[in-house]
Amino acid sequence: MNDARVPVTVLGLGMMGRALARAFLAAGHPTTVWNRTPGRADELVAAGAVAVDTAAAAIAASPLVVVCVRDYPAAEEILGTARDALAGRVLVNLTSGTSAEAREMAGRVAGRGAGYLDGAIMMTPPGIGTPEAVILYGGAPEDFTANEPALRVLGGGTTFLGADPGLPSVYDVALLGVMWGTLNSFMHAVALVGTEGIAASTFLPLVKDWLLGVSSFLSLYAEQIDSGDYAASDATLETHLSPIGHLIEESRARGVDASIAEYTRTLVEKAVSDGHARDSYARIVEYFGAPAARA
Amino acid sequence: MNDARVPVTVLGLGMMGRALARAFLAAGHPTTVWNRTPGRADELVAAGAVAVDTAAAAIAASPLVVVCVRDYPAAEEILGTARDALAGRVLVNLTSGTSAEAREMAGRVAGRGAGYLDGAIMMTPPGIGTPEAVILYGGAPEDFTANEPALRVLGGGTTFLGADPGLPSVYDVALLGVMWGTLNSFMHAVALVGTEGIAASTFLPLVKDWLLGVSSFLSLYAEQIDSGDYAASDATLETHLSPIGHLIEESRARGVDASIAEYTRTLVEKAVSDGHARDSYARIVEYFGAPAARA
Ligand SMILES: NC(=O)c1ccc[n+]([C@@H]2O[C@H](COP(=O)([O-])OP(=O)(O)OC[C@H]3O[C@@H](n4cnc5c(N)ncnc54)[C@H](OP(=O)(O)O)[C@@H]3O)[C@@H](O)[C@H]2O)c1
Ligand SMILES: NC(=O)c1ccc[n+]([C@@H]2O[C@H](COP(=O)([O-])OP(=O)(O)OC[C@H]3O[C@@H](n4cnc5c(N)ncnc54)[C@H](OP(=O)(O)O)[C@@H]3O)[C@@H](O)[C@H]2O)c1
Repeated sequence: MNDARVPVTVLGLGMMGRALARAFLAAGHPTTVWNRTPGRADELVAAGAVAVDTAAAAIAASPLVVVCVRDYPAAEEILGTARDALAGRVLVNLTSGTSAEAREMAGRVAGRGAGYLDGAIMMTPPGIGTPEAVILYGGAPEDFTANEPALRVLGGGTTFLGADPGLPSVYDVALLGVMWGTLNSFMHAVALVGTEGIAASTFLPLVKDWLLGVSSFLSLYAEQIDSGDYAASDATLETHLSPIGHLIEESRARGVDASIAEYTRTLVEKAVSDGHARDSYARIVEYFGAPAARA
Repeated sequence: MNDARVPVTVLGLGMMGRALARAFLAAGHPTTVWNRTPGRADELVAAGAVAVDTAAAAIAASPLVVVCVRDYPAAEEILGTARDALAGRVLVNLTSGTSAEAREMAGRVAGRGAGYLDGAIMMTPPGIGTPEAVILYGGAPEDFTANEPALRVLGGGTTFLGADPGLPSVYDVALLGVMWGTLNSFMHAVALVGTEGIAASTFLPLVKDWLLGVSSFLSLYAEQIDSGDYAASDATLETHLSPIGHLIEESRARGVDASIAEYTRTLVEKAVSDGHARDSYARIVEYFGAPAARA
């Protein structure tokens, strides 16, 4: 059974690289590992990995090479030391960066006769290898298809976005942005109910239920955004203004920072004064600089 | 069967008031309705409601009286016309407002010999009466308990928060704040992926999955907030800074407004420069003015 598994190499044994190597080992892939600073591979070697001294040797060891280091310059530096070893391999770069960095690297790697997939990991290291782990890929479809079984070992939510190696980075920051937006407003909410002596864990179950509701609103709004028809069938932008005002008032009265709500009010007031009072919240997308493609 | 149901009155037949009355009628409650402007009750009368000409007559008709109008001043105005009719009733105020307004009204209603429950509806009118509809209540526990079966008709998520009639308003705006935070960052994300020609509905399923993940992060952060121990077991604040920078960079490069991400960066940079680089995102709660009660 193990013999059927493609040999893999993992370059970079930080928190994430180690989690990736552990998942490959657990699935029975012959796994070669390398890290700039020695001593990070001991636990992996105990689990069956082969640790080598140079990136070039690690790359030479496997047809599928995964790199996951701090940033793209670090990844470039590593590949620079590997000379011709890369030719004929498929490099899967799971390092976080921008779409411009990903597209540049894809070009350079192709110039060295290797396949290239760029990936974005939407999961923390302990979740790697679970059905919930979402990892987004972009690059040559044939490279993805050929390596999909091995990549799926890293996460059940393995998703191919298409031939553009820059797309995973765009999705990555867009999704992380949704996370920060939700987290910031959660922190604001917790500070607010905290002034009434309510613990975060008491408030939490209501937030979780509510987020399921919010998630269902998104389906309606996505449709409206794609069609360009924003007529409200739930709540109008004008209707939103009054509770936004209450949130600001309640926050100020309790010494809780209201900047997030003030930002929301500015957005919604602008849309209302532009004549969109009867539209749904979906109209707000236009205030972020919606692309002409959607008009 | 119907005879066992307590008679109810609904004051205010806007979009929400009509939905509330419909739910009571569907559950077999003898239902009396009133609206300032006539002509809003026709559909309800056809479904079995009794429409009366004055608020006083409507209040006199039932031991349980629900009011749901634009704002608290409107609700006060209505009750002002009702003179002694209120004595011996339980008034359930589902109008949106601030905690201060709710507490004031609770006092005034008590002074007129009536019970008072304040409520916050976390649902749009079409969802009233469904198992998913969350409605939060505060007020005298005995008034809630006595009327709980009737109130549960309005939503399966009927939740009693305690004796303080101001609490539902605080929860209401806190939860709505989480909604706006999530919606704003969703709009930002959609604008961003839109520059790559990705439709909102294509991006949507990834956002929905991701929000389930974000929701699970909240459990960890709520624990950390309540314990005051913010040491990161997932990602440190320092680790967040680099992708926040990527989000800003990708947004600017595409003409998408990056204000939300800049706000996030300011928050996180402040926490890092205050010495919290190794803490989790939960530490950010302190930057909203966390109450002394938690320290
Ligand atoms: N942790 C997460 O939750 C998470 C989630 C999604 C994506 N990611 C991404 O995954 C990547 C790795 O993250 P991590 O959590 O593993 O970080 P980490 O624990 O800080 O590890 C960083 C790794 O990068 C290596 N490195 C840094 N500069 C290098 C250079 N110039 N040459 C060679 N190697 C270099 C380090 O090697 P040394 O040991 O020699 O310093 C180390 O192996 C990052 O791009 C991160 O954004 C992480
Ligand atoms: N719609 C939602 O999704 C939603 C969700 C949660 C909470 N709420 C809250 O529910 C309440 C009602 O909302 P709605 O959607 O039903 O609004 P709506 O459709 O605009 O109806 C407003 C109602 O208030 C009445 N009203 C306004 N001023 C009045 C006054 N001075 N005296 C007597 N009646 C007056 C109106 O009577 P006329 O017909 O005579 O104008 C009408 O019945 C609001 O506090 C809202 O925030 C709504």
